[in-house]
Amino acid sequence: MQTPDTMPSIEVIEHDPDPAPGPASGPVACPAGFVAGGAAAGVKPERRPDVGLLAVEGARDGADAAAAVVLTRNRMRAACVDRSAGLLQREGARGGRVQVLVIQSGNANCATGEAGRRHDERLAAAAAAATGADPERTITFSTGTIGVPLPIERLERALPDLGGALAADGLRAFAQATLTTDTRTKIVTVPPAEGRPFTVVGTAKGSGMIHPDMATMIGTLLTDAEVEPAVLDRVLGRVVDRTFNRISVDGDTSTNDGVIALASGRAGPAGEEALEAALLAASDHLSRLIVADGEGVHRTILVEVAGAASEDDADRAARTIATSLLVRTAVTGGDPNWGRILAAAGRSGAAFDADRATVRAGGLEIYRDGTPLEVDAGEATAAFRADEVTIAVDLGLGDGRAHFRSCDLTSEYVRINAEDMT
Amino acid sequence: MQTPDTMPSIEVIEHDPDPAPGPASGPVACPAGFVAGGAAAGVKPERRPDVGLLAVEGARDGADAAAAVVLTRNRMRAACVDRSAGLLQREGARGGRVQVLVIQSGNANCATGEAGRRHDERLAAAAAAATGADPERTITFSTGTIGVPLPIERLERALPDLGGALAADGLRAFAQATLTTDTRTKIVTVPPAEGRPFTVVGTAKGSGMIHPDMATMIGTLLTDAEVEPAVLDRVLGRVVDRTFNRISVDGDTSTNDGVIALASGRAGPAGEEALEAALLAASDHLSRLIVADGEGVHRTILVEVAGAASEDDADRAARTIATSLLVRTAVTGGDPNWGRILAAAGRSGAAFDADRATVRAGGLEIYRDGTPLEVDAGEATAAFRADEVTIAVDLGLGDGRAHFRSCDLTSEYVRINAEDMT
Repeated sequence: MQTPDTMPSIEVIEHDPDPAPGPASGPVACPAGFVAGGAAAGVKPERRPDVGLLAVEGARDGADAAAAVVLTRNRMRAACVDRSAGLLQREGARGGRVQVLVIQSGNANCATGEAGRRHDERLAAAAAAATGADPERTITFSTGTIGVPLPIERLERALPDLGGALAADGLRAFAQATLTTDTRTKIVTVPPAEGRPFTVVGTAKGSGMIHPDMATMIGTLLTDAEVEPAVLDRVLGRVVDRTFNRISVDGDTSTNDGVIALASGRAGPAGEEALEAALLAASDHLSRLIVADGEGVHRTILVEVAGAASEDDADRAARTIATSLLVRTAVTGGDPNWGRILAAAGRSGAAFDADRATVRAGGLEIYRDGTPLEVDAGEATAAFRADEVTIAVDLGLGDGRAHFRSCDLTSEYVRINAEDMT
Repeated sequence: MQTPDTMPSIEVIEHDPDPAPGPASGPVACPAGFVAGGAAAGVKPERRPDVGLLAVEGARDGADAAAAVVLTRNRMRAACVDRSAGLLQREGARGGRVQVLVIQSGNANCATGEAGRRHDERLAAAAAAATGADPERTITFSTGTIGVPLPIERLERALPDLGGALAADGLRAFAQATLTTDTRTKIVTVPPAEGRPFTVVGTAKGSGMIHPDMATMIGTLLTDAEVEPAVLDRVLGRVVDRTFNRISVDGDTSTNDGVIALASGRAGPAGEEALEAALLAASDHLSRLIVADGEGVHRTILVEVAGAASEDDADRAARTIATSLLVRTAVTGGDPNWGRILAAAGRSGAAFDADRATVRAGGLEIYRDGTPLEVDAGEATAAFRADEVTIAVDLGLGDGRAHFRSCDLTSEYVRINAEDMT
């Protein structure tokens, strides 16, 4: 995987999507201080795993973790989003500490009215009871079908057993139980290194947003670093802004999106900078895995804009190029189409002068100073047929830099989303 | 065709896309005071018509028309866009008057550097010479492949004959010569009526923006009304904002987009309000024809938002719903998916409360007050399988209203744009 120029260069272990022999497969360990697991409560059909539970070790005795969340900005929000915001984001709640995280993936519990809010409270209560924790320090996330009442009793029946079976190496089971239309688990570990005595482990789910299986993006970042909740909140905001907020499968944010970070403190105090670098590396990698697992995706796209008049301009241009349907279908067709790339930059709102722009595809310069370059057609096409297509645009106007990750747009995407009937 | 609630209800004659027997087919007459025609200059392969010429009758003797243009806001702009802006939009040029309009559709003459600017001047000079007009009162538009030098000599060779062959009923030939990837001509006439002694005739081309055949949208609105250029400019700005700027095939604005209005004055003075109503009706109809002729389009979509907290909010919500890939693929699949519609409204930036929103599809209410309604599945599906799918969302918060037109997203669109290689 390509790391954007603006990202720290840190070792990230990508765990195999399925448990197979090898160093990065099999059970996945939580950072010290957490236990996790997953179960099939029967909300999903065919007894597929549909509830993931994660607890701070010793929650029964009052142990907890520093916590921060970033939640969807969509104004159509599920009950769990409002509840999480209330517990962790309201004024004065920034000193938030959490004991338990429960994610159920059978039903989004969104557009379910007052009953939905009561069901969400019952889910928190059941998860807390199963682990001996405090419901007010228990965070819930839901993902799945919207507009359908949540069969909360099934979750209430399944959680006690799951609570008794949590394990330090249960993170794969947890991650598996949070998937909806994903085709694989997405788990990464950033091991300790010099100047970084702590571990970060992250999981994510999401592969486009579709209804009824509205495949919300949910990210879980765990660390044994010791950090104040207020610092974690600040760091997480910056990390999400540069990773999970810079990916797009179809441009639709969900009603249930969220990223949560939990820090147990078992590895001792962490510097803010070192923690941010590790969380950034883990989150950038997870973001790329989400895009790669997008519906109907064959190729991922990494757009890097440099030379913009400002950071904001770089962000606008990178985002507009990466999400342009014409750029995305050019990648589908393996066509190094500089015209579509520049036309997207030109309409992005960023300051732009075609005569000063440079376009590179996979390192190959294809446009400079107002005109396309004579390049080897085979080389240019190869750059647009890589598993990860990198498009680098230098606007030649300033120092602003930004990146954005997206994916090709395929007939398979259309088929999946057109045939997925309510 | 459905007319949005916010549009005037005025008779619009849609001319048959191909000349066949019937009242709306065969040659199409210009409003009084214009002559038009089209020819094949050999810029396009297979001698397809590629240059349309339109002149004010008596241009040779100095006759001209009041003129106004609205041009692409894309900062990657073709030479003709800069030239038109210079002639008609620079400070003090608002009193613009025009004698000739030439549109060549074989080559966008964009990303062609200084040579492109010279070629554009030569195109204006050749069109002016062919009609005995003033090059400084001659407007050029180009559309087609970008990044390829314009074979200007071929146009210079073809224009003299075309200039001699212009006719009052030559508008169909003109319109045909401006097409690129369009599958049909788009021409409408708003005949005179009580309180409206003038005629408006409009043509448009465009069906998505693709490169190399970058199918720019170009609209030409002609009237025999008498109106000051400054008034025409003001009216055209409002009209375009409510019509051509409210359609999307793929969200990509082109490097060459433009709408021009010309008023010969032969029918005598027109009230500003009456003129605006007629131009609105013509432009709304043309906008719908552009979307319907979009690449791979099977169904058009009309989104009407009411009850928004402001006009801006209504605009944001309508635009976001109409361009959402998930809403568009729901229409592809004939799936009355209220969840995708509301999630798009929720992320649009408009004030939004799911508990106060109502969603209707083809007149059938499918969601109200925070929950989906029990509706006849067949009826709901039928509403999403109409040739024109109407989605009406009432946000229940205020008086803001707006509409936006778009289209389904099909595998055919992906195929066309993925296979169209540079």
